[in-house]
Amino acid sequence: MEIISIIEIIGVITFGMSGAILAVQKDLDYYGIAIFALITATGGGIVRDILINEFPVSLANPFYALLSLLAAVVAILFYNQISRLSKVLQIFDAFGLAAFTASGAKYVLDHGFDQPYVVITLAILTGTGGGTLRDVFAKEIPYVFQKEIYAVASFIGVIAYLLSMEFLPPRAALYICFGITLAVRLVSLKKDLHLRHVAKEVR
Amino acid sequence: MEIISIIEIIGVITFGMSGAILAVQKDLDYYGIAIFALITATGGGIVRDILINEFPVSLANPFYALLSLLAAVVAILFYNQISRLSKVLQIFDAFGLAAFTASGAKYVLDHGFDQPYVVITLAILTGTGGGTLRDVFAKEIPYVFQKEIYAVASFIGVIAYLLSMEFLPPRAALYICFGITLAVRLVSLKKDLHLRHVAKEVR
Amino acid sequence: MEIISIIEIIGVITFGMSGAILAVQKDLDYYGIAIFALITATGGGIVRDILINEFPVSLANPFYALLSLLAAVVAILFYNQISRLSKVLQIFDAFGLAAFTASGAKYVLDHGFDQPYVVITLAILTGTGGGTLRDVFAKEIPYVFQKEIYAVASFIGVIAYLLSMEFLPPRAALYICFGITLAVRLVSLKKDLHLRHVAKEVR
Repeated sequence: MEIISIIEIIGVITFGMSGAILAVQKDLDYYGIAIFALITATGGGIVRDILINEFPVSLANPFYALLSLLAAVVAILFYNQISRLSKVLQIFDAFGLAAFTASGAKYVLDHGFDQPYVVITLAILTGTGGGTLRDVFAKEIPYVFQKEIYAVASFIGVIAYLLSMEFLPPRAALYICFGITLAVRLVSLKKDLHLRHVAKEVR
Repeated sequence: MEIISIIEIIGVITFGMSGAILAVQKDLDYYGIAIFALITATGGGIVRDILINEFPVSLANPFYALLSLLAAVVAILFYNQISRLSKVLQIFDAFGLAAFTASGAKYVLDHGFDQPYVVITLAILTGTGGGTLRDVFAKEIPYVFQKEIYAVASFIGVIAYLLSMEFLPPRAALYICFGITLAVRLVSLKKDLHLRHVAKEVR
Repeated sequence: MEIISIIEIIGVITFGMSGAILAVQKDLDYYGIAIFALITATGGGIVRDILINEFPVSLANPFYALLSLLAAVVAILFYNQISRLSKVLQIFDAFGLAAFTASGAKYVLDHGFDQPYVVITLAILTGTGGGTLRDVFAKEIPYVFQKEIYAVASFIGVIAYLLSMEFLPPRAALYICFGITLAVRLVSLKKDLHLRHVAKEVR
């Protein structure tokens, strides 16, 4: 059982927490909570691996499932404490988004993809895929389509990754991507920033 | 056109029936009923094949589609008789779950995967994938996340498969997996067993 | 950046428009509109490419994303004009269905698949996949399962493609498939044709 990187551990735990919290809110049982944690934590990587024709790392290595289940247990035990924080689901989700954007970009680059367009697309899909599956299964319109800056944060993070790579060691670029994606997402949550809507005529 | 195994025939017909019945309940037309039957009957295998990078067997072999359509025709002709049985959807679904858990485990083992964690995960995905797609397309929170013992039945069945393989011929292990998954699922339906929920504080 | 075929350009723009229009109707912001355009325009091809184990062409070639975004911009700028047309979403959707059925069939044939059953299935999935993802993400029961002739139009189009190929040059077969799928779908919309439902007993 290979140990996974710090960034991936952060991503699995925080996305796992976000899935578990949503499952409790939807009144699912312990099993449903565990599965929501698992799908949210591994979904983005699985989408990425399907697209690049790799066997999903999270199916090959039980470490991902164990960490997701740990996140589910924590969410079950401390739900009432955790849920006192406002926007707690969105905050865990922001950490997951940042972690999987960064680890997704690294994974894709490590597998020999180097066209910026491809790296950007796959990193965003890795970052947003788990939360999107979580929301589809919970019958919510996924966050990624909703009102706030979400995939835009992921996009800015990957651009920062690719630019940093020119000047800095790969590990630094990874953390810069994580930090910038997280910062953009949290600031947009805090300030309630979002893009414009189309003004529809009333008829 | 290769003939498929008995277990797969059972799985395609019963999952096909469950998809068709849900489609009638959702007031879809004949075409929608046929497609729901098809997706439910083939979805789990397609998910498995995508994950292990095989061309989906149900796309290569028209036998699956023909059997699914047959199930849809039966459901259309006898809907009013069938629907008199209570929990009829769940019962067909339980047979499909058991059949695809068993055939999924066999398929994965036959393709050279032997780590228990990988076999268990892929067998559960084969067993639960078709019903999950059915429910997503019908705008229901999928069964697999809901209150009763569902993927847990599939999990216990695969464990039984892997243990039986040590002592018994492969075909016996296949039927044991089918029987145990089905029994656990039907008993949990009958007794309305389910796992606990998180007690949320009223605030 | 390779230029894509006329049929694909038609498909990406019209499916992109249909995604963008649905996103405006669902009151999503500019970003959500762009993503809905992108997913609708590229989803069918991505499903096809995942099933035949090819790296998705729309992820390799940014032309698809650029055209989708162009469609989103047009939809945002002219939403109030466009939406005056009745059934505008269904009309754009019909063009996308026809274009992707034809381009999907061609793509699959070009990749060496020649069994009619396989070509038909994959062409229908290419034609219907984008709209299905669009509707799942918008929390609608997908069109393809709903009341009118939809995948049936796609099915008739592919049959026409395969028959025409026997007598006519490939390019002619492609346009015949496009024209017939579109005609069947538009006529069914115009005449409000649909398949029968199951008469459920009132109890």
